[in-house]
Amino acid sequence: MNFSSKLLEKAVEEVAQLPGIGKRTALRLVLHLLNRPKSQTIQLTTALQNLVENTLFCKNCHNISDSEICEICANPKRNSELVCVVEDVRDVMAIENTAQFQGQYHVLGGKISPIEGIGPHNLTIDSLVEKVKNGGIKELIFATSSTIEGDTTNFYIFKQLEGLPVTITSIARGISVGDELEYADEITLGRSIINRIPFEHSLKR
Amino acid sequence: MNFSSKLLEKAVEEVAQLPGIGKRTALRLVLHLLNRPKSQTIQLTTALQNLVENTLFCKNCHNISDSEICEICANPKRNSELVCVVEDVRDVMAIENTAQFQGQYHVLGGKISPIEGIGPHNLTIDSLVEKVKNGGIKELIFATSSTIEGDTTNFYIFKQLEGLPVTITSIARGISVGDELEYADEITLGRSIINRIPFEHSLKR
Repeated sequence: MNFSSKLLEKAVEEVAQLPGIGKRTALRLVLHLLNRPKSQTIQLTTALQNLVENTLFCKNCHNISDSEICEICANPKRNSELVCVVEDVRDVMAIENTAQFQGQYHVLGGKISPIEGIGPHNLTIDSLVEKVKNGGIKELIFATSSTIEGDTTNFYIFKQLEGLPVTITSIARGISVGDELEYADEITLGRSIINRIPFEHSLKR
Repeated sequence: MNFSSKLLEKAVEEVAQLPGIGKRTALRLVLHLLNRPKSQTIQLTTALQNLVENTLFCKNCHNISDSEICEICANPKRNSELVCVVEDVRDVMAIENTAQFQGQYHVLGGKISPIEGIGPHNLTIDSLVEKVKNGGIKELIFATSSTIEGDTTNFYIFKQLEGLPVTITSIARGISVGDELEYADEITLGRSIINRIPFEHSLKR
């Protein structure tokens, strides 16, 4: 690209480094910034600066937080004996939106993925094992994504916790509520048959 | 969405105001910022701040520029008697990339679009008419987009310039180089027949 302005070029270069944003999209976004009131862009840059300068990670669950202990861990109404293990903050938000879970979380910060160079020690697994060893956790629920990496991560943690007095469960995989069987993939359908539940349970909402 | 951090929520809100970026994409981008070195994000925000604080628009052609007169207008090798009228800076970049144009530009800043509330006085048309009246421009080339709004804008400028000693041309519309006729749309194909050119001209590269 042939930029008429070095400032414009630099801004486009920086925006184009974001994931999923190419040079053309970056240029469109940057020109939009020039067309709207300057104060709005200053608000945007201030919010991003505040975020990277001041965001903390909860010392207990490693979730993104404004304080040393996040709101969920600090809430005395949440059951600290029941811990849901998730990959990142988006999973916490998704589960919180269901309003079905009253325990605490443990945010791994990703999943084991040799291809991306992410090993167990890049995640918060050691801290999870430590927490379990210190006692006080009765049940861990694995809620990582249903991929090879997610399964590997679960299995690694499972092995690390062998022999410790903690129940380990996994969220149910099966046909989505509202889905028609004929369009479900075979693996999901197969698993949902193997892991069938008593009919009375399926009446619970 | 159920944010665990106000800083995160504010950053996502601001990013989601950009065109074409929803809340989910904004969250993905913002979490990416948290996962990469802080200094990279400071570079990004500094570049955007510098852009909106310091960018100028060329006093002659209204293109984005780092100085009062842009590099193209300041270049004595460019023909100031030949002016190409375009919508925005992206069109200038596209034409500059062809390396086929040695004149100057006039950036309108958009096109007349009653639906979006953009009238002639929101664009730099008055300044263009002024420039033509002051003399020194022999030919104006309309290179706005081939839409109703683009055609309206061209026609409005054409009417404003009636009687002034300036040649007004429009870039050629026709079948793209490399395109097969059977896939071309009828209007483009029809226009390319009406505006046929002597064969010798088509040999020029």
